[in-house]
Amino acid sequence: MSFQNPVFIPGPTNIPERLRKACDMSTIDHRSPLFGQILSPAREGVRKVLKSDNAEVFIFPSTGTGGWETALTNTLSDGQKVLAARHGMFSQRWIDMCQRLGLDVQVVETPWGEGVPVDRYEEILSADTNHEIKAVLATHNETATGVTSDIAAVRRALDAAGHPAMLLVDGVSSIASMDFRFDAWGVDVAVTGSQKGFMLPAGLAILGFSPKALEASRSAGLRRVFFDVQSMHESYAKNAYPYTPAFGLLNGLNEACRMMLDEGLENVFSRHNRIAEGVRAAANAWGLDLCARSPELYSDTVTAICTPRGFNSTDIVTHAADAYGVAFGVGLGEVAGRVFRINHLGSMTDVMALCGIATAEMCMVDLGLDISLGSGVAAAQEYYRMHRNSSGA
Amino acid sequence: MSFQNPVFIPGPTNIPERLRKACDMSTIDHRSPLFGQILSPAREGVRKVLKSDNAEVFIFPSTGTGGWETALTNTLSDGQKVLAARHGMFSQRWIDMCQRLGLDVQVVETPWGEGVPVDRYEEILSADTNHEIKAVLATHNETATGVTSDIAAVRRALDAAGHPAMLLVDGVSSIASMDFRFDAWGVDVAVTGSQKGFMLPAGLAILGFSPKALEASRSAGLRRVFFDVQSMHESYAKNAYPYTPAFGLLNGLNEACRMMLDEGLENVFSRHNRIAEGVRAAANAWGLDLCARSPELYSDTVTAICTPRGFNSTDIVTHAADAYGVAFGVGLGEVAGRVFRINHLGSMTDVMALCGIATAEMCMVDLGLDISLGSGVAAAQEYYRMHRNSSGA
Amino acid sequence: MSFQNPVFIPGPTNIPERLRKACDMSTIDHRSPLFGQILSPAREGVRKVLKSDNAEVFIFPSTGTGGWETALTNTLSDGQKVLAARHGMFSQRWIDMCQRLGLDVQVVETPWGEGVPVDRYEEILSADTNHEIKAVLATHNETATGVTSDIAAVRRALDAAGHPAMLLVDGVSSIASMDFRFDAWGVDVAVTGSQKGFMLPAGLAILGFSPKALEASRSAGLRRVFFDVQSMHESYAKNAYPYTPAFGLLNGLNEACRMMLDEGLENVFSRHNRIAEGVRAAANAWGLDLCARSPELYSDTVTAICTPRGFNSTDIVTHAADAYGVAFGVGLGEVAGRVFRINHLGSMTDVMALCGIATAEMCMVDLGLDISLGSGVAAAQEYYRMHRNSSGA
Amino acid sequence: MSFQNPVFIPGPTNIPERLRKACDMSTIDHRSPLFGQILSPAREGVRKVLKSDNAEVFIFPSTGTGGWETALTNTLSDGQKVLAARHGMFSQRWIDMCQRLGLDVQVVETPWGEGVPVDRYEEILSADTNHEIKAVLATHNETATGVTSDIAAVRRALDAAGHPAMLLVDGVSSIASMDFRFDAWGVDVAVTGSQKGFMLPAGLAILGFSPKALEASRSAGLRRVFFDVQSMHESYAKNAYPYTPAFGLLNGLNEACRMMLDEGLENVFSRHNRIAEGVRAAANAWGLDLCARSPELYSDTVTAICTPRGFNSTDIVTHAADAYGVAFGVGLGEVAGRVFRINHLGSMTDVMALCGIATAEMCMVDLGLDISLGSGVAAAQEYYRMHRNSSGA
Repeated sequence: MSFQNPVFIPGPTNIPERLRKACDMSTIDHRSPLFGQILSPAREGVRKVLKSDNAEVFIFPSTGTGGWETALTNTLSDGQKVLAARHGMFSQRWIDMCQRLGLDVQVVETPWGEGVPVDRYEEILSADTNHEIKAVLATHNETATGVTSDIAAVRRALDAAGHPAMLLVDGVSSIASMDFRFDAWGVDVAVTGSQKGFMLPAGLAILGFSPKALEASRSAGLRRVFFDVQSMHESYAKNAYPYTPAFGLLNGLNEACRMMLDEGLENVFSRHNRIAEGVRAAANAWGLDLCARSPELYSDTVTAICTPRGFNSTDIVTHAADAYGVAFGVGLGEVAGRVFRINHLGSMTDVMALCGIATAEMCMVDLGLDISLGSGVAAAQEYYRMHRNSSGA
Repeated sequence: MSFQNPVFIPGPTNIPERLRKACDMSTIDHRSPLFGQILSPAREGVRKVLKSDNAEVFIFPSTGTGGWETALTNTLSDGQKVLAARHGMFSQRWIDMCQRLGLDVQVVETPWGEGVPVDRYEEILSADTNHEIKAVLATHNETATGVTSDIAAVRRALDAAGHPAMLLVDGVSSIASMDFRFDAWGVDVAVTGSQKGFMLPAGLAILGFSPKALEASRSAGLRRVFFDVQSMHESYAKNAYPYTPAFGLLNGLNEACRMMLDEGLENVFSRHNRIAEGVRAAANAWGLDLCARSPELYSDTVTAICTPRGFNSTDIVTHAADAYGVAFGVGLGEVAGRVFRINHLGSMTDVMALCGIATAEMCMVDLGLDISLGSGVAAAQEYYRMHRNSSGA
Repeated sequence: MSFQNPVFIPGPTNIPERLRKACDMSTIDHRSPLFGQILSPAREGVRKVLKSDNAEVFIFPSTGTGGWETALTNTLSDGQKVLAARHGMFSQRWIDMCQRLGLDVQVVETPWGEGVPVDRYEEILSADTNHEIKAVLATHNETATGVTSDIAAVRRALDAAGHPAMLLVDGVSSIASMDFRFDAWGVDVAVTGSQKGFMLPAGLAILGFSPKALEASRSAGLRRVFFDVQSMHESYAKNAYPYTPAFGLLNGLNEACRMMLDEGLENVFSRHNRIAEGVRAAANAWGLDLCARSPELYSDTVTAICTPRGFNSTDIVTHAADAYGVAFGVGLGEVAGRVFRINHLGSMTDVMALCGIATAEMCMVDLGLDISLGSGVAAAQEYYRMHRNSSGA
Repeated sequence: MSFQNPVFIPGPTNIPERLRKACDMSTIDHRSPLFGQILSPAREGVRKVLKSDNAEVFIFPSTGTGGWETALTNTLSDGQKVLAARHGMFSQRWIDMCQRLGLDVQVVETPWGEGVPVDRYEEILSADTNHEIKAVLATHNETATGVTSDIAAVRRALDAAGHPAMLLVDGVSSIASMDFRFDAWGVDVAVTGSQKGFMLPAGLAILGFSPKALEASRSAGLRRVFFDVQSMHESYAKNAYPYTPAFGLLNGLNEACRMMLDEGLENVFSRHNRIAEGVRAAANAWGLDLCARSPELYSDTVTAICTPRGFNSTDIVTHAADAYGVAFGVGLGEVAGRVFRINHLGSMTDVMALCGIATAEMCMVDLGLDISLGSGVAAAQEYYRMHRNSSGA
């Protein structure tokens, strides 16, 4: 495996130089004022990326999975009911976590390749007149299928049903690469990790809590200590941490937010959209379907591409690594062997995307698929040419 | 605060160049075989550092606090009884965690500055003929007081009482800098973090589980998902992780183990002993008592030094940072204002220790204590001269 | 300009992670034995890369230009005659240096795009019966035109003429990426720099001296102090340097040699050939001529591509930087505006090359050239597919 | 040798983190505008550090030795006369270089430990009524003896004699750590390197040329190409370099200047004075003389300490490396075996200096000198305590 080629796995993503250096710190005293100069702007930067005025940002030395656990254990009590849709590996894992934590999950089975079934959510919420459902779970971007769900619509479903349940959103593979509107969408808890849109090494769970979610954390009965947001909240007030912080990653997070805010959030999002459109143009040129079933579901951070029946899509991933030193994502769960995934989340340029497309193309030809070399590249080139921005970034 | 001076806080500790570079990795595919080449030797290295043949090593993207939670939630069930001694801030915090997790803690109040009260443990265990106590907690090195407890004696107490309780040991500020004998001492769970003896940034909880503890994890009733050792165990069997690993830190851990095994574990331990003896000689020359009440309790990784009555020891720490750019540890909890701490855990040389001693000396004189400049340094120099090893390391 | 995209300038080249870290050293005492442990294997590694048993390797804190000056001033005296061909910007610059140093250069004017005119050299040398020509200069790889000359043939010309002149070879953009046979070709001085085939930052002039050249340095009359090989020679004997060495770069050089010797020199060369063939296939697909006039002259490290008359080739380079954040080489001197250059020297993979080809393609279409998007990429893909090695490196 | 201890050799000096990262760059196109954004402020920063309004700053990928050669070859012609004093190893080496370059050096033999003999210079210059002396050489800080000479007085001697010779100053171990007044002192060429006061790795020769010196470079007859300031001058005008620049080091130089200008040049100089005073207080407490013969000659960047007759001072340096992993400077040339040197040039704090003093003390006691442990440390501590600044830097 070459360390020179970019990676195209849907996280951890490619880490820019500037962030590599920001993370690689010599030891500081995390009880000194210097630590506050790292922590505060990092939390503030995340808040801006979430487009929230009121969210309290929590950052744990953990991962997105720890973020999910933080979201659940700080807002819910043993046996409480939550509503969730299963439409991909990551929504499935979150449901599994709920069950292991002793929650009562009402699962809406949804085809993989579809988004959160908003109409079904609304029906269920409307029918729940006793408000037994305490939280609604939504996976903003299903990394397994390359499907982006409409969180604003989930909020509208809650509102239409007049339902007070909290809205917990998995934004692990969307936040910081796609538009995310914590306040406008009435999100109560948003979850992500450092190694995705924030372009850092894995090691941080990053969450936003609404005032309502923070209030819930005072009485939530599920037991937690490490992931307790109240302990964090109290420590933050003193510019401190309840245990040893990963200050290098926090410093990197601070710098990552600065990079994105300097580029402009809307520019970051449109760059991801442009790159994704190129990848989709390539798939179209290859005559391959996306796993996402309709254009409004297409993810701007990861594209899951279906391979023809009888072909094992995992072979593309194995072959790309072996023959060309390039890492793609395999299909997971229900779509294992049926899709492969090209990531364009995080730090990515048009030119990097082209080398991923070119490699996928070679692999598919090597493995006998009826694909013309250069066809996908040409389609993406055309898109990038016509939509390039001037900065070359 | 100067970034050029070493830090003397009891973790995070100074990070050697070699480990800085090992941690600072470009992104790899953690599902590729390359990851196994990092994970396996890292786990194997930790096992050797623990001096165990049978322990299963678990490494979580978390901290020592997460390690404690892992130890408890994977071995115990709601309301079960555990035995613990409170004799410093970190033993107190572990007790607090037990209580928050719903365990029934039998607390043995012990003066801060004393070690684990082994005789009292034996009495209690002997009296517990129904074996209601499921786990015995012991803090190997109380970082707050600079006290090392005798874990072999705790094991003997358990054996003398014929008690089957598991032995859970907090080795956060001892493991990898002091002798730790997982197998010989019959430890069931050992806990540490990356930012202490392993000389790495914070971000990993590192644990050893005995076969008995691993067996307990199959039925332990406390809920956990992120910290579940069974999920880890299953993933490790496939050279994988149940979620995104912090592979940079794992790579650093692998390298840290290699560094220590190259130096020789006994050499690492005797280096820490030598450095500590020098610091203690300095304290003695200053006419100041240690917080640890007797020589057999003296810690080779952190020295807590008592300041005279009426003097606020925290002033030393504040002044050292402000006037000389050097970080020491403050007194915590019951000994706040009464002790200050010089760390010698992790990556440390005699020469680095001398600059810590010299700085503390200047600070105490600046703040009006009746100390002769150079006196503590001279005492430490004499010790280092007479006990130096040839490598100069 | 994006820092994430690879560069395609013909030096400095892309620096692998491993070499970045090897160069980035904390300060050591260059008079300690440690320095010898860096210097000796670095010099030995270079000797192996040069395929020489007898060359003495000299490494100066300088650049390739300093290397040229070292080659000339240590072997020649004021007013002495040298033979050289002008067939590109770098051979021209070397001739210019000779003249500025007071040498009498017999210049063979040669079309840019041609190699060293071996037959003409032989005629001149045969005619020089008094052996007034003291040195023959040859540019192994003209970076400006992408032309590789046949150094073995130059040696045969010298031998055929029975001429004792020394053979000084500019291997700046060939050594370590192309086969170079110091001993077999009877080279007397070979010159390169750190920032080309050795994949390091600029800052080192690297030379091999034959015993004959070293002997010449005892009496060579051109004045030099900094670049004096005798001073170096004497210092090396004591594992030292005549002034402060750039030990970080030397450490990097050591590591670079190890990387290449681990990969296998022949594998390194065939990788560069494969990548170059792909780039040439792309140029052919675009219907564009190479600056190099015939296949045996084609360089495996840099390809200079002619653009159609009336088109300013520099626009491609400017546009690639502005629109796509990718750096190519402009045409220099006589071929300014007429060629642009794609570098494939140093650290490069097939996949990286594809992203350079794809970018060049977009630029040419953007600028109105009649090129089909994807055509060059497809031609290169086909070549890479059919000639890939198994390592994916 | 430990990589954790600071070094106390008189260059290369300890490199701050911030500069390590600034130097460690990925490859950029040095023909792109980005390069100008590094080069221009770096040159401007050096000009400010030199306290000059008019100097043109030249930066070569070389070392201080290359800087000397640049100074001489660009201002002088074959056989021209220069005036120089020999009073240490580095003034001796510069004289030696003059002779090797064919200059006619009038050497004023001066005891090692003395400064530039200003009165003797004035006599000689006054007597040189034909103005045959074209340049006066002065070593601002003799690194071998720890002697700082009075350059302002050299200028006064030139003026008193009404002599038009150029004033060439070796500021290798003074510039950026001691006050240097290019304009006020009428310096024509000032020379230094990156690895001293600028706190960077070796690899850059850094020079200031007065308009008069630059004018001289148009007609100076000594041959040079690599070190030609006219070629540099022309390239700088296009934000370019005549050959491949070491842009990482240039970026580091830019950052180093920024660091020093942020700290305040006068603060940098007073910090070095304070640290030096502490080292001298230690030597005094040890009862050892300095090599510098009188207080006005004492260097604030390096202290050369005389050991008693019959004792080989080099043993201290060897023993410090072997037993404690600390690097000091040996005596060189005439004072070999008679002095050892503690460097305090470049990046240094009071606390770091104390660890050097403490180590030297241990070594001397180990080797049988009649020194009290702690005595030198106490003297330095007292000085640092009484003169500390508030920033702790």
